[in-house]
Amino acid sequence: MRTIKRCLKFMILGLSVLAGTAYAEWQALPDTAPAPKDNPTTPEKVELGKMLYFDKRLSQTGTVSCQSCHNVMEGGDDSRPTSVGVGAQFGPRNAPTVFNSAFHAAQFWDGRAASLEEQAKGPVTNPVEMGMSDTSVAVERIRQLDGYASYFNAAFGTDEITFDRIAQAIAAYERTLITPDTPYDRFVKGDGEALTARQQRGMKTFAAVGCQACHSGANFSGQMDPGAPLTLQKFPVFASSRFVEEYGLMEDQGRFKSTGKEADKHMWKVPTLRNIALTAPYFHNGKVNTLEEAVRVMGSTQLNRDLSDQQVADIAAFLGSLTGKGLKQTMPQLPPTPGGMLSNSQ
Amino acid sequence: MRTIKRCLKFMILGLSVLAGTAYAEWQALPDTAPAPKDNPTTPEKVELGKMLYFDKRLSQTGTVSCQSCHNVMEGGDDSRPTSVGVGAQFGPRNAPTVFNSAFHAAQFWDGRAASLEEQAKGPVTNPVEMGMSDTSVAVERIRQLDGYASYFNAAFGTDEITFDRIAQAIAAYERTLITPDTPYDRFVKGDGEALTARQQRGMKTFAAVGCQACHSGANFSGQMDPGAPLTLQKFPVFASSRFVEEYGLMEDQGRFKSTGKEADKHMWKVPTLRNIALTAPYFHNGKVNTLEEAVRVMGSTQLNRDLSDQQVADIAAFLGSLTGKGLKQTMPQLPPTPGGMLSNSQ
Repeated sequence: MRTIKRCLKFMILGLSVLAGTAYAEWQALPDTAPAPKDNPTTPEKVELGKMLYFDKRLSQTGTVSCQSCHNVMEGGDDSRPTSVGVGAQFGPRNAPTVFNSAFHAAQFWDGRAASLEEQAKGPVTNPVEMGMSDTSVAVERIRQLDGYASYFNAAFGTDEITFDRIAQAIAAYERTLITPDTPYDRFVKGDGEALTARQQRGMKTFAAVGCQACHSGANFSGQMDPGAPLTLQKFPVFASSRFVEEYGLMEDQGRFKSTGKEADKHMWKVPTLRNIALTAPYFHNGKVNTLEEAVRVMGSTQLNRDLSDQQVADIAAFLGSLTGKGLKQTMPQLPPTPGGMLSNSQ
Repeated sequence: MRTIKRCLKFMILGLSVLAGTAYAEWQALPDTAPAPKDNPTTPEKVELGKMLYFDKRLSQTGTVSCQSCHNVMEGGDDSRPTSVGVGAQFGPRNAPTVFNSAFHAAQFWDGRAASLEEQAKGPVTNPVEMGMSDTSVAVERIRQLDGYASYFNAAFGTDEITFDRIAQAIAAYERTLITPDTPYDRFVKGDGEALTARQQRGMKTFAAVGCQACHSGANFSGQMDPGAPLTLQKFPVFASSRFVEEYGLMEDQGRFKSTGKEADKHMWKVPTLRNIALTAPYFHNGKVNTLEEAVRVMGSTQLNRDLSDQQVADIAAFLGSLTGKGLKQTMPQLPPTPGGMLSNSQ
């Protein structure tokens, strides 16, 4: 009797997946991203944030903006192993996509920033990213650009320019960089034809082998509520995997680098899988070039499974259904630079 | 009698200027830019050109695009003395604005490129700009981006990707980057209130002191017809000007650097003055920070005149009337980068 019940349950589950019926485990992305109470998303703030996001003058040399490493005209990242900052210096970690970052409970690979507002502040004074000596220098730079005052006034009610406001505006813009309505989202909302047969197979395999243990929820990044206690995951779990040495996956000690706590060694935030087909190369060090290999690595290092070629291809096809359409955006118009602001000495 | 006639002529001239009546010397910018017969401007080609213009993968390191130095979200330039290319290297000359470059008879500071198509090819293999070892490497890079083929097909009728086509598409996009309908243009078309009293005074002073001898025509860059023999001008004409040493104006020998001809020493193309209020710092070496000082330098080095503070302020105000509105443009969407295309070694 129990076996019959089980079989029945499995058949219903199978049919509902094939028919594209939504059920609890598979969630579509909301059409809007949540904003913190003290920084509501308004059109004026988003417009200002877009300007600042594209403004290279927020970097010491005037050569690096948020957009430089998180290219919203492509996959929201910079398509390279690790990012290039001021003075052609390389950073230590791969740039995550900005798309749907609003649905992450925490920011940065190690989750060390609790919000997009906090994250936006980090790179400005990082010596190998935007290289400003101090946040006050960045604020002063923006204050010297006459054209900005009216935009701050429209966004915040007064024309005062502060580092907090700069970060708030950028975060508000980033909350609009979301990509709902992917084939996956349409499928879980009931459009059974939104996914190919292979993608549907991959979806089932994705769940069956255990990927959802971490990559759960609408953003495939586990917890989405910034209020909840941060949940990190160990990567790699199986340090004996042959991929660990091949791709140097334990060279970076993860959150340990920012906390110094032994328990944080090799602990990482669960990154979103949305748009992952657009954001090669993969992992925190950007050493894995293809999505198929990334799936294989995850199977081995996290689940201790040698996924078959068929499983890998199916899962990769499914992950391709998480690719959003490119956002239609207008280009911002930035205030002009006074002569002498940007020098040619670094 | 002759004196009366002269006075009358002057009064009519004065009145017609005040009333904003158009006359031969002052021309409004056309609403569209001319295109060469073998590269007609089409929406499909412009869209492809915009993608390529923003595509940093055209540089060896994947960090520099046309947009990097000719920022269409700002003044069409990079607001610094000379440009920064791959590996944080500085180029030798100030980046001219891309806006209205379609109305220049020749391109680059020394006019060494006869067309936008020819110009677009230059920076790609310049070791301190985009740093590609060969044009074929750039073409191969674009060929490896699957998403481009359909755009080339739409623009050119087949999906063949060549360096000529890349340059043609970029040039077609650049021909749309024009800023007619400035206050100046509206004034010469008859709107007497489009310019302030100071700007109108500056307009007269601009003509009276001799600026128009070179900065003539609708683009304030002299000849606009790419078919005509190239007319260069000497800068500085008056080498004894105190500004020559102060700003190192003779350190760069101009067109001589590309031709090696004695007659080309310190010869330059006449650059447009449109949007000049947005494109500080000034001159080929970007050593002059303000528009007022640039006017003073030109008076001294080209006309052997010490312009008064009033004249300088009036002319600068007039030049401010040549600022176009920011173009409303949508952001292009670029094909994704295969993992491994961009490495972290340079």
